[in-house]
Amino acid sequence: MKIDILTLFPKMCEEVLNTSIIGRAREAGLVEISCHNIRDFTDNKHRQVDDAPYGGGTGMIIQAEPVYMSYMHLEGKPHLIYMTPQGKPLTQDKIKELSKIENIAILCGHYEGIDERVIEELEPEEISIGDYVLTGGELPALVLIDAICRMIPGVLRNEEAYQNESHYDGLLEYPQYTRPLEWHGRKVPEVLLSGHHENIAKWQKKEAIKRTKLKRPDLLKD
Amino acid sequence: MKIDILTLFPKMCEEVLNTSIIGRAREAGLVEISCHNIRDFTDNKHRQVDDAPYGGGTGMIIQAEPVYMSYMHLEGKPHLIYMTPQGKPLTQDKIKELSKIENIAILCGHYEGIDERVIEELEPEEISIGDYVLTGGELPALVLIDAICRMIPGVLRNEEAYQNESHYDGLLEYPQYTRPLEWHGRKVPEVLLSGHHENIAKWQKKEAIKRTKLKRPDLLKD
Repeated sequence: MKIDILTLFPKMCEEVLNTSIIGRAREAGLVEISCHNIRDFTDNKHRQVDDAPYGGGTGMIIQAEPVYMSYMHLEGKPHLIYMTPQGKPLTQDKIKELSKIENIAILCGHYEGIDERVIEELEPEEISIGDYVLTGGELPALVLIDAICRMIPGVLRNEEAYQNESHYDGLLEYPQYTRPLEWHGRKVPEVLLSGHHENIAKWQKKEAIKRTKLKRPDLLKD
Repeated sequence: MKIDILTLFPKMCEEVLNTSIIGRAREAGLVEISCHNIRDFTDNKHRQVDDAPYGGGTGMIIQAEPVYMSYMHLEGKPHLIYMTPQGKPLTQDKIKELSKIENIAILCGHYEGIDERVIEELEPEEISIGDYVLTGGELPALVLIDAICRMIPGVLRNEEAYQNESHYDGLLEYPQYTRPLEWHGRKVPEVLLSGHHENIAKWQKKEAIKRTKLKRPDLLKD
């Protein structure tokens, strides 16, 4: 899989992309990720990419042309995603779908936004990671890439390739315990020590449902 | 404001924290952010922080003690937030609320999760950035910090301190345009060139509502 990031802050992205699971996936050649600086696609001498909005108001708008050129220089016209609070809220199903695409590009906005006309021209898929305001699309892009990378076969080690995790089967995860057996007077639930796989699975399912009912009843309605 | 991050990947966080608006806010002394490595709070010689889950299954669980100690060594018992898919979905209102707290600490999970008992003991506020699965809590913590930092008075420059942005007033943002007047045959809407502030404001409001109806009708129901 190949992922291209179109951003004004490639350095900030690189450090995260070299770390943890994403870094390992890149090293293993399971995913190829490149950052492209939108600023490299201006033709003015100050390499300015933004300008004041028409109609007045505060904030600076990223111009259409450098965004357009940064995408057009990519090989093979990758599926373009634009990280924006206006997009469809990201879900685990969408991540599974995107992880099967051979080549995607992710456009990160910054400042007040991007000139609407280049969005109309390129017609990217618009994705939002949540209903809150951030200073740019870089962190959302990294969130999306992290989520996608761990779905690529071979990326997660066997011991990490868990199936029983939150939002994977529509439930929150059951509580987890590791050593020691007793900590601050709190004991590990008996059933987990029984070695009785069926009972353990039943308890975990029950706890997952209980927790989802308590913390996120909206997930059970669908 | 002071923010402490409890993480297994402090280096990954640092690069992002030095960049863009967060970096500027730190330099200006408007926010003090420190990363603490949970691994520094183990007492075993291999500095191992995780172990196999009771009850079997794949994945590794972070042990209660190093998490507990990493929090207890912080001065002044900051308000503790745990980034987890089990948490309450993050909203802009929550961000405004958190930006007024003097001192917060953010706990990032990794691997399969954290021993439930330290969560019961510390009773953190549990926050989720969205219904999808990530490899760790570091990116969610950075998303939260970015969103909080830009709400701290003095952090955004005047030209960035926009009020008309997505999710700020419950609507998506209206389309934005900057130079040139015509790009790829697409023109800037006439009204934005009129200089008539009232008409411009009306048009922007109308477009914001239209766009919200089209892309996120759920936002209008509340």
